[in-house]
Amino acid sequence: MTASVPDGGRAPVARGASAFAPASVGNIGVGFDVLGHVIDGPRDIAHVRRIAEREVRIEAIGGAVAGADRLPLAASDNTAGRALQSMCEALSLPFGFALTLEKGIPLGSGLGGSAASCVAALVAANALLDAPLTRAALYPFALDGESVASGARHGDNVAPMLLGGITLSTPEQAIALDVPAWLHAVVVHPDQTLETRRSRAVLGAPYGLGDVVAHSAHLALFLTGLQRGDAALIRAGLRDVLVEPRRAPLIPGFEAVKRAALEHGALGASISGGGPSVFAWFESRAAAERAAPAMRAGFAMAGFDARAYVSPVAGQRAELLQAPPA
Amino acid sequence: MTASVPDGGRAPVARGASAFAPASVGNIGVGFDVLGHVIDGPRDIAHVRRIAEREVRIEAIGGAVAGADRLPLAASDNTAGRALQSMCEALSLPFGFALTLEKGIPLGSGLGGSAASCVAALVAANALLDAPLTRAALYPFALDGESVASGARHGDNVAPMLLGGITLSTPEQAIALDVPAWLHAVVVHPDQTLETRRSRAVLGAPYGLGDVVAHSAHLALFLTGLQRGDAALIRAGLRDVLVEPRRAPLIPGFEAVKRAALEHGALGASISGGGPSVFAWFESRAAAERAAPAMRAGFAMAGFDARAYVSPVAGQRAELLQAPPA
Repeated sequence: MTASVPDGGRAPVARGASAFAPASVGNIGVGFDVLGHVIDGPRDIAHVRRIAEREVRIEAIGGAVAGADRLPLAASDNTAGRALQSMCEALSLPFGFALTLEKGIPLGSGLGGSAASCVAALVAANALLDAPLTRAALYPFALDGESVASGARHGDNVAPMLLGGITLSTPEQAIALDVPAWLHAVVVHPDQTLETRRSRAVLGAPYGLGDVVAHSAHLALFLTGLQRGDAALIRAGLRDVLVEPRRAPLIPGFEAVKRAALEHGALGASISGGGPSVFAWFESRAAAERAAPAMRAGFAMAGFDARAYVSPVAGQRAELLQAPPA
Repeated sequence: MTASVPDGGRAPVARGASAFAPASVGNIGVGFDVLGHVIDGPRDIAHVRRIAEREVRIEAIGGAVAGADRLPLAASDNTAGRALQSMCEALSLPFGFALTLEKGIPLGSGLGGSAASCVAALVAANALLDAPLTRAALYPFALDGESVASGARHGDNVAPMLLGGITLSTPEQAIALDVPAWLHAVVVHPDQTLETRRSRAVLGAPYGLGDVVAHSAHLALFLTGLQRGDAALIRAGLRDVLVEPRRAPLIPGFEAVKRAALEHGALGASISGGGPSVFAWFESRAAAERAAPAMRAGFAMAGFDARAYVSPVAGQRAELLQAPPA
């Protein structure tokens, strides 16, 4: 039995909540715009308060990453602000939200920073609703938010942040896929930036039938390997013949980093999101730990410092940092 | 205990064997050149004898289908002959094969007829080896045979014939995928022919990024749906935005047939192989049986008679018709 509360047994709704959302590896090489996975590493944090005004207000953006102070404070220009506006509109909420963001994911890194702010804000705001929604129900709001940054409603970053692990995402739905627990990723983020716009521009020219067929085969092998926990199939499938050949030249050091990963037994390696971060997958945490310094050294040879993160591929989804008081 | 035989307990090898291979639906719409499934319906039969000469000889090609008498008798120009030559060469066999084919799968129908002759011959010949090979080991010989007809080593027809049900195939390997037993197909073959060459020619121009991403999403939804036995995911994925829009105009009646299938609850419908046959998938045999006449009527409206086949998607693989005597 719970103690009775004034309004018919329902606990009063909290006025403030905080949540984090993890960094992510968008595309996973073989799944451009449709696959992504989260990593346990850098994260963004959102603090959200309910306010009486029916509006979304961004009060501050801080955090340890360079450039955080230059992010837009106008709600409709900010991924997190736009996501909360979308939620308020869709639910016709009789109140609004005030939002403070702490950026922990480097800007322009290819680690899904704009998506993380948006998902952290939604998870925190959701806890402040009279009747919180499922993660799946938050997905359309996250896509609306993400579209502010990328101009398109693609869920390869927001979906895994909402659901955890690896997701398959379309504009209509997000699905959590099975992930073998032994799979580990190394993600190396170099001290260089690559504008999403520039990274997208090289993809415009069309693709030949042979590459499209090879891509289909790789994607199918990869998904079958994931489902069966079969490392050989994942290795056969984790190759990007469409996007990587066009984007890799924009990332000084990429080839050396990839080579280092493969020489250390990686199942595959490619560009994280729009780059310049590079990810590789391994059959164990130990193998990933051994490869990480060699991958950093690849960027060092090209003149760039880099940070390496080692994480299960089945990384943790976004969560509340402090549950609202009951 | 078995009766002892002269050569150290090993039974004498038979001198003749016959096998059938079923028709197939190449591509399955969303898996151009990489996915295919067999159906229980028309089939090709191969009768194979061991001969002392180290050669492959085609003695006759018959059967009920139009044009069977015009197929090449020179072994290296015939898919079945070439496949057996490939087997003889790879295994350095000290003997050869004489082959008779009975064609049951209509030529130029998009139902994998050339692949079926090749697989039936291999399965029969395999039974005549002193040490028969696994189905997987026959796959490279089947690809060699198939390449005579198509000019390329693609396994979307030979792989499901060797392994049964649905397969994922690449030039390197063939993998049998899980198939829900309730899935049923209708395949409608109209009295019209479409040259593979013409059907391939329209695919040459390259594909835009948007279509490639949509294709990836569909393929991933489809494979996830198959694996989970989830009809809604299969329905979301069973769509071809790449090939069907280019090939459909070559098939009079296609749109009416597809519409009839969807109106009868199909999970999806598209072109079988290079066409002109059309397939659709349903959630039960009863639903497939109900749709089949409406799909035939779609071709009739365009002035073409058509035959309809209803089969489990998990159709039967190629098998020996008469086991060699022990």
